[in-house]
Amino acid sequence: QETVCIFGTGDFGRSLGYKMLQCGYSIVFGSRNPQTSSLIPKGTEVLSHGEAAQKADIIIVAIQRQHYNFLTDLTEVLHGKVLVDVSNNLKINQYPESNAEYLAQLVPGAKVVKAFNTVSAWALQSGTLDASRQVFVCGDDNKAKQMVMDIVRTLGLTPLDQGSLLAAKEIENYPLQLFPMWKFPIYLAIGLSAFFFFYSLIRDVIYPYIYENKDLSFFIAISIPNRVCPIVALILLALVYLPGIIAAILQLHRGTKYSRFPEWLDKWMLCRKQLGLVALVFAFLHVLYTLVIPIRYYVRWRLNVYVISQIKDNRTNPFNNTTGWISDSYLALGILGFFLFILLGITSLPSVSNSVNWREFRFVQSKLGYLTLILCTAHTLVYGGKRFLNPSMYRWYLPAAYMLSLIVPCIVLAVKFVLIFPCIERPLTQIRQGWE
Amino acid sequence: QETVCIFGTGDFGRSLGYKMLQCGYSIVFGSRNPQTSSLIPKGTEVLSHGEAAQKADIIIVAIQRQHYNFLTDLTEVLHGKVLVDVSNNLKINQYPESNAEYLAQLVPGAKVVKAFNTVSAWALQSGTLDASRQVFVCGDDNKAKQMVMDIVRTLGLTPLDQGSLLAAKEIENYPLQLFPMWKFPIYLAIGLSAFFFFYSLIRDVIYPYIYENKDLSFFIAISIPNRVCPIVALILLALVYLPGIIAAILQLHRGTKYSRFPEWLDKWMLCRKQLGLVALVFAFLHVLYTLVIPIRYYVRWRLNVYVISQIKDNRTNPFNNTTGWISDSYLALGILGFFLFILLGITSLPSVSNSVNWREFRFVQSKLGYLTLILCTAHTLVYGGKRFLNPSMYRWYLPAAYMLSLIVPCIVLAVKFVLIFPCIERPLTQIRQGWE
Amino acid sequence: QETVCIFGTGDFGRSLGYKMLQCGYSIVFGSRNPQTSSLIPKGTEVLSHGEAAQKADIIIVAIQRQHYNFLTDLTEVLHGKVLVDVSNNLKINQYPESNAEYLAQLVPGAKVVKAFNTVSAWALQSGTLDASRQVFVCGDDNKAKQMVMDIVRTLGLTPLDQGSLLAAKEIENYPLQLFPMWKFPIYLAIGLSAFFFFYSLIRDVIYPYIYENKDLSFFIAISIPNRVCPIVALILLALVYLPGIIAAILQLHRGTKYSRFPEWLDKWMLCRKQLGLVALVFAFLHVLYTLVIPIRYYVRWRLNVYVISQIKDNRTNPFNNTTGWISDSYLALGILGFFLFILLGITSLPSVSNSVNWREFRFVQSKLGYLTLILCTAHTLVYGGKRFLNPSMYRWYLPAAYMLSLIVPCIVLAVKFVLIFPCIERPLTQIRQGWE
Ligand SMILES: Cc1cc2nc3c(=O)[nH]c(=O)nc-3n(C[C@H](O)[C@H](O)[C@H](O)COP(=O)(O)OP(=O)(O)OC[C@H]3O[C@@H](n4cnc5c(N)ncnc54)[C@H](O)[C@@H]3O)c2cc1C
Ligand SMILES: Cc1cc2nc3c(=O)[nH]c(=O)nc-3n(C[C@H](O)[C@H](O)[C@H](O)COP(=O)(O)OP(=O)(O)OC[C@H]3O[C@@H](n4cnc5c(N)ncnc54)[C@H](O)[C@@H]3O)c2cc1C
Ligand SMILES: Cc1cc2nc3c(=O)[nH]c(=O)nc-3n(C[C@H](O)[C@H](O)[C@H](O)COP(=O)(O)OP(=O)(O)OC[C@H]3O[C@@H](n4cnc5c(N)ncnc54)[C@H](O)[C@@H]3O)c2cc1C
Ligand SMILES: NC(=O)c1ccc[n+]([C@@H]2O[C@H](COP(=O)([O-])OP(=O)(O)OC[C@H]3O[C@@H](n4cnc5c(N)ncnc54)[C@H](OP(=O)(O)O)[C@@H]3O)[C@@H](O)[C@H]2O)c1
Ligand SMILES: NC(=O)c1ccc[n+]([C@@H]2O[C@H](COP(=O)([O-])OP(=O)(O)OC[C@H]3O[C@@H](n4cnc5c(N)ncnc54)[C@H](OP(=O)(O)O)[C@@H]3O)[C@@H](O)[C@H]2O)c1
Ligand SMILES: NC(=O)c1ccc[n+]([C@@H]2O[C@H](COP(=O)([O-])OP(=O)(O)OC[C@H]3O[C@@H](n4cnc5c(N)ncnc54)[C@H](OP(=O)(O)O)[C@@H]3O)[C@@H](O)[C@H]2O)c1
Ligand SMILES: CCCCCCCCCCCCCCCC(=O)OC[C@H](COP(=O)(O)O)OC(=O)CCCCCCCCCCCCCCC
Ligand SMILES: CCCCCCCCCCCCCCCC(=O)OC[C@H](COP(=O)(O)O)OC(=O)CCCCCCCCCCCCCCC
Ligand SMILES: CCCCCCCCCCCCCCCC(=O)OC[C@H](COP(=O)(O)O)OC(=O)CCCCCCCCCCCCCCC
Ligand code: HEM
Ligand code: HEM
Ligand code: HEM
Repeated sequence: QETVCIFGTGDFGRSLGYKMLQCGYSIVFGSRNPQTSSLIPKGTEVLSHGEAAQKADIIIVAIQRQHYNFLTDLTEVLHGKVLVDVSNNLKINQYPESNAEYLAQLVPGAKVVKAFNTVSAWALQSGTLDASRQVFVCGDDNKAKQMVMDIVRTLGLTPLDQGSLLAAKEIENYPLQLFPMWKFPIYLAIGLSAFFFFYSLIRDVIYPYIYENKDLSFFIAISIPNRVCPIVALILLALVYLPGIIAAILQLHRGTKYSRFPEWLDKWMLCRKQLGLVALVFAFLHVLYTLVIPIRYYVRWRLNVYVISQIKDNRTNPFNNTTGWISDSYLALGILGFFLFILLGITSLPSVSNSVNWREFRFVQSKLGYLTLILCTAHTLVYGGKRFLNPSMYRWYLPAAYMLSLIVPCIVLAVKFVLIFPCIERPLTQIRQGWE
Repeated sequence: QETVCIFGTGDFGRSLGYKMLQCGYSIVFGSRNPQTSSLIPKGTEVLSHGEAAQKADIIIVAIQRQHYNFLTDLTEVLHGKVLVDVSNNLKINQYPESNAEYLAQLVPGAKVVKAFNTVSAWALQSGTLDASRQVFVCGDDNKAKQMVMDIVRTLGLTPLDQGSLLAAKEIENYPLQLFPMWKFPIYLAIGLSAFFFFYSLIRDVIYPYIYENKDLSFFIAISIPNRVCPIVALILLALVYLPGIIAAILQLHRGTKYSRFPEWLDKWMLCRKQLGLVALVFAFLHVLYTLVIPIRYYVRWRLNVYVISQIKDNRTNPFNNTTGWISDSYLALGILGFFLFILLGITSLPSVSNSVNWREFRFVQSKLGYLTLILCTAHTLVYGGKRFLNPSMYRWYLPAAYMLSLIVPCIVLAVKFVLIFPCIERPLTQIRQGWE
Repeated sequence: QETVCIFGTGDFGRSLGYKMLQCGYSIVFGSRNPQTSSLIPKGTEVLSHGEAAQKADIIIVAIQRQHYNFLTDLTEVLHGKVLVDVSNNLKINQYPESNAEYLAQLVPGAKVVKAFNTVSAWALQSGTLDASRQVFVCGDDNKAKQMVMDIVRTLGLTPLDQGSLLAAKEIENYPLQLFPMWKFPIYLAIGLSAFFFFYSLIRDVIYPYIYENKDLSFFIAISIPNRVCPIVALILLALVYLPGIIAAILQLHRGTKYSRFPEWLDKWMLCRKQLGLVALVFAFLHVLYTLVIPIRYYVRWRLNVYVISQIKDNRTNPFNNTTGWISDSYLALGILGFFLFILLGITSLPSVSNSVNWREFRFVQSKLGYLTLILCTAHTLVYGGKRFLNPSMYRWYLPAAYMLSLIVPCIVLAVKFVLIFPCIERPLTQIRQGWE
């Protein structure tokens, strides 16, 4: 039975001690007042810091960084021992150096390893490890790191080696982050939504109010969101595939893949997954908004009025075959596009993407992704249908919103179409050779 | 090449042997009749129990518990060896002590490790390890446990150290359990559904039958389920957030977080995930039932009659702006609530929750969770709309079912609203300090 | 700090070197021209092959197979070293022996281990390990394999031991495969779809065109797909449960479970998951197609005409209670069936199936699976309803498509019903004993 020492009998120290005890370790606490209280897990010892440290090779420092300075007195005892820093900060980049590096400076002879800071005391205690089971580990001494990683594994958690102690800064920032990769896509989506919201408000609510004196303000609840959502979804979807095209053009232009992309392109390429998922959210809302259309009081009322007006005029509007075709085919295109969209979403789930090979993942994300874009663009084009050239669609010289939404997708598809011509694809493939 | 001995050439012994052979182990079977048959994997030896045991340090006992007694004769040979108990029982808590502990008593000199009991023979043989790849391991000797865990890892499975041999009882019960955490939420949901089903039956079918002599029995198929499902979903959703509020009040009252919660509260808090997912199921059914409304024969017929009656009376009901607003906004609120609901569901998927950090998980589950509750409650309130105070809604003095459904959510939201006042939140945060 | 040598400074060698450097290894490259270029990760050495090999115990050969022959000159230096073969081919089974075996022949004294071939250079470099994190490892020397698996783990990847070097062939084929298990289900689904598409085309478009001179060609967009999709979904769902029944009959007939099933049955049983998921896709499309019905121009027009014709004839079609029942109950059955279908889909997600035990998985997949089949079959039967015996349903002696779709499900359910009779189930359970 390996003995591990934990400094600090606070929340985290106790919880970790409790869990390690369960998994077969023998635990010694080092505390300022070495008395066993009722809170301390049964079967453990509480000693002074010095005594406790002598009993084990690994010492977990479950104390806030601002109290680390007392450790300088223990430099001798701690010589050659593995010191595990578990501390977190309250703000990102709170201190110039990471807590772990600071600890390494304070106790020069010890082998400092950063670990466990992403695990919550409560999760350890209650056993409901819902959030991440990943424990990021870093440190300059490889053997010390291995020892800590063995403990992590024994506790049923997954250690992830992040390299030398330099990585500690990043590891300490990690639990303070709130969806960092999602920021840009979400802000972009909000910006686009706001723009198209006001654009549609002007065209669909304010214009009829001024010219026809109709109060359509209730359009704000469903009609306008159902204009904004699909448009934003379509644009975001196109923006997922745009960086790949820009990258291809850059590589063709430079004739090599070894010069770095400009930074904005790099960043853009790394958040394509998030962009795509945000697009999926908007597409999903579009579908829901669309499917409730026939339940809406307004729609029922309009259909009602339509029938009654026909009766009053004593006519039955004949069936128009072209309209039948257009209506059915844009709906069918939308359904197929949405289905592929969801398939892309499902393959983004970590557990699914982890069980396909690279070729399969690329097939789904790249090939089926473009197919999704084609279907969604076609859906919008066909929906536009005969209305496209209809001058009544321009209100205050503003074209219908969906026309604006088609610009980016059409550009992406057109350039991609050029890029797959053999005379262009061959040199590109040559440039990219060795990529798998 | 490490040699492993397996006692018993039954289904499990053979399957495990076959798999281990594939992964590079050398296998010796110990059997009552040491003859190689066609069923035994090629490349293995079959010896008597004693001979086989001598050839290896690890012996896997793939024999039913009731036949263990012959092992007492082998105590000498097995001295110091690692004995792996893989056995399962037929009923939960069938024997007073666990099989592994019984084995340890029978063969005192051996180091007994419990493992592999959750893996099925067929899964090992066919390679379709669809259900759990987790192998729970426990034992009193740490080194023996490590050896077994290395084997588990080599077979491509995930070992989970559960501590000392005392844990064997729980491990043996595990494969006999059928969704233990889901029991309470599911029974609760069934109970609530039954209550609201009969409640609605009385109000919506029996009442009109008696007073208006209308046969609306077909409401049982869709109309009533579409009343029951959303109501149960809403109540369950509120019950997900109620225990957190009770916990907060308790902690405020006690002034410390270190006294244990009453047991019912603890249990309730641990099954919130399952409660929430059951609520999602009901919400999902509500949405499907709602979306098919316009396809229903009854609904089409009613709209039909409505138009015809207008024509007959030679009038066109005018558009009511307020109704337009109410209809559209309760639908919009429902859609947004449902979307967030699904988001909560997606972040509950083990692979997703495992790739977010604790702060992100809490943000989604706690912040967005309350937002979901607010949206869903608002959806119901607005749906009620003008009907709320309408006395015609009371049939036999029974209020409409959705009014009952609003009680718990409104209480939860009101108390939560009080709890986030700074003067209450500050002491609470102080009490909870150290929680991460 | 362990030193690892990498032969070849190509894309893969550099990317792997870069990643390993980050994780604390010390890297030496062996190259034809030993000069450090700007592309080579900083902090590494580039030497000639011979010199580099001497510095490390593990040598990763990041060179195409066709250039391996130069390694024969280094046989002496490489004696006793671990040689890691990472190479891939361009085609499945390109060479008679696997690359790793070829390498082992070339350098007889070395311990060859196959690994890393499923990881992409770009993934290593950019850190976006979206596709599989699984690294398949095989080799004849167990210690060498353990060393390589330790490296894999340290890089944050998951090693999977596949046994001896014989497995290399399969491992090399793996990254070239494109959903091998999905091929049969997808082809089957396409075949069935094509058949029912033309069948419905004849009945629903060509027949009315010839006899009633109606142009219903626009049915191709939605109406016919919404006939084909549910039918294919239902048949595929039945085909998921058919092999289990055939297996049971075979086992009953043979009286033992130890004779192998015929190969086609084995294969069929192994692709049931994929069959089921393809069925889910078709069911999902059916639901979407169904839910857009009320938005379709054609449907609105028809309802319109229906109302007007009633008015013209000055009558109101009375409400038919039976039709109300039938309409509502087939919709309700469809909804419940679809919900269970999705539940089956969710439990197929690797991360979910991995966190349930075998009994729970079987409960969902087998018990709830049959319930799904029952509900979907009942949905179709009730939809057929009164139409079943209506002779007008036969056009050109062709029965309605949904009647054909009911054949397989009804057979499966009938035979299953027989199989669960106690007098048949008991011997079956006995035969299957020991299966867990
Ligand atoms: C719903 C949804 C979900 C999504 N989920 C994900 C997800 O989980 N993960 C994800 O990554 N994306 C995801 N995406 C985004 C998108 O589908 C993928 O990024 C897709 O691979 C992009 O395809 P592409 O053909 O444009 O790019 P790629 O095939 O990646 O190639 C485009 C460019 O990238 C560069 N490049 C690509 N591979 C290499 C390489 N090996 N070496 C050097 N350069 C290279 C090249 O410059 C190339 O020109 C998702 C999108 C949607 C809509
Ligand atoms: C669709 C759906 C899916 C869900 N999935 C999940 C899921 O996967 N996992 C899950 O856990 N829940 C899940 N839930 C339930 C719910 O969303 C969460 O439990 C949520 O965190 C509760 O939020 P809260 O603010 O009420 O509770 P919390 O934020 O947990 O806090 C409430 C109370 O819990 C106690 N508490 C919380 N944290 C600590 C701590 N560290 N130490 C001591 N006491 C503490 C405190 O007493 C506090 O008053 C799901 C719900 C739904 C609707
Ligand atoms: C949407 C959907 C998703 C699905 N996902 C999955 C999935 O993820 N994984 C999956 O496996 N299936 C999946 N399926 C397929 C199907 O649900 C399962 O295979 C299901 O277990 C079959 O049930 P069954 O009762 O017919 O077969 P089983 O219960 O497997 O038994 C049928 C026959 O199989 C043989 N058999 C079964 N177990 C053993 C054993 N231990 N030893 C020897 N022979 C045995 C027996 O001969 C038996 O007669 C999915 C289906 C659908 C519709
Ligand atoms: N709580 C979590 O969920 C969590 C999660 C990850 C990481 N962490 C990290 O774990 C560390 C401890 O957190 P915690 O939540 O356990 O905090 P805590 O409950 O406040 O406990 C801190 C402990 O440190 C000791 N201590 C305090 N002041 C000290 C001083 N001046 N000199 C020496 N020792 C002192 C005390 O132990 P004695 O009285 O025994 O001396 C005290 O119990 C922090 O660095 C935190 O960032 C916590
Ligand atoms: N089957 C599964 O899926 C599964 C899964 C997890 C755990 N398990 C556990 O594995 C164990 C074996 O299960 P199984 O399915 O393999 O059962 P089994 O097919 O019935 O085989 C049991 C084997 O035990 C040996 N045996 C029987 N009676 C014995 C006796 N009196 N004395 C000595 N040996 C005797 C026999 O081997 P010899 O003829 O060679 O002596 C026999 O083949 C059980 O404890 C079970 O709980 C099984
Ligand atoms: N790229 C990937 O994503 C990936 C993924 C998995 C596996 N692999 C495998 O990794 C290996 C290397 O792939 P790669 O993409 O790195 O290829 P690469 O970029 O073409 O590099 C191959 C390297 O091999 C060396 N080499 C070439 N010809 C040689 C010769 N005649 N004699 C000795 N050395 C020679 C060269 O290194 P020096 O100039 O330094 O001698 C060259 O840089 C292949 O077997 C491939 O299947 C690649
Ligand atoms: C119906 C459509 C439903 C879809 C609704 C919107 C879904 C998209 C929501 C994205 C949620 C992201 C969670 C954020 C957590 C996070 O950061 O998660 C972080 C992880 C990051 O993983 P990495 O670390 O590997 O990058 O990201 C994910 O796990 C992505 C999860 C994607 C989930 C998409 C699932 C779509 C499923 C669709 C089901 C089918 C629906 C069918 C319907 C009719
Ligand atoms: C469309 C909505 C679809 C949702 C329908 C209902 C889904 C909820 C069903 C819950 C199923 C639980 C499985 C039980 C197995 C189990 O015990 O599983 C056990 C595991 C337990 O994990 P732990 O051991 O970590 O507690 O639980 C889970 O894995 C929970 C899985 C939650 C899945 C929710 C997924 C929702 C996805 C929604 C997709 C978007 C749909 C979009 C639609 C229009
Ligand atoms: C709404 C329904 C949405 C469903 C739409 C169709 C979903 C089915 C698509 C299957 C996709 C398979 C991906 C192929 C990748 C692969 O090979 O994946 C390979 C892995 C292989 O795993 P193994 O190696 O373990 O066999 O397979 C899977 O992971 C299967 C994933 C199944 C996903 C089903 C998810 C259903 C979720 C439903 C959500 C609720 C929706 C609610 C709606 C209203
Ligand atoms: C089930 C799938 C879908 C259905 C049933 C559907 C249906 C519809 C309908 C009925 C409209 C007209 C809305 C109106 O009259 O205001 C529409 C418009 C539109 N749809 Fe879809 N759609 C689907 C999927 C998608 C997807 C996946 C996208 C792309 C991301 C998309 C993009 C659009 C766009 C851009 C418009 C034009 C918006 C406008 O200006 O009004 N649709 N869709
Ligand atoms: C897409 C999302 C949703 C839509 C379109 C929707 C639509 C509707 C409709 C049309 C009704 C009236 C039903 C009737 O007339 O009988 C209704 C009622 C109701 N909804 Fe929703 N809803 C949605 C989501 C939700 C969610 C997520 C909840 C909460 C869990 C919810 C809770 C309720 C409740 C409690 C009622 C009252 C039931 C009654 O007494 O009739 N809804 N919803
Ligand atoms: C939300 C769930 C579902 C709804 C609302 C629904 C609704 C419908 C409707 C309205 C029809 C008649 C279509 C028409 O008139 O052309 C239909 C037919 C049918 N449904 Fe479903 N369904 C659902 C789920 C399912 C599922 C899960 C299956 C089985 C896999 C299924 C199988 C069928 C079949 C075989 C037909 C007959 C197709 C034909 O010949 O027209 N349905 N369903």
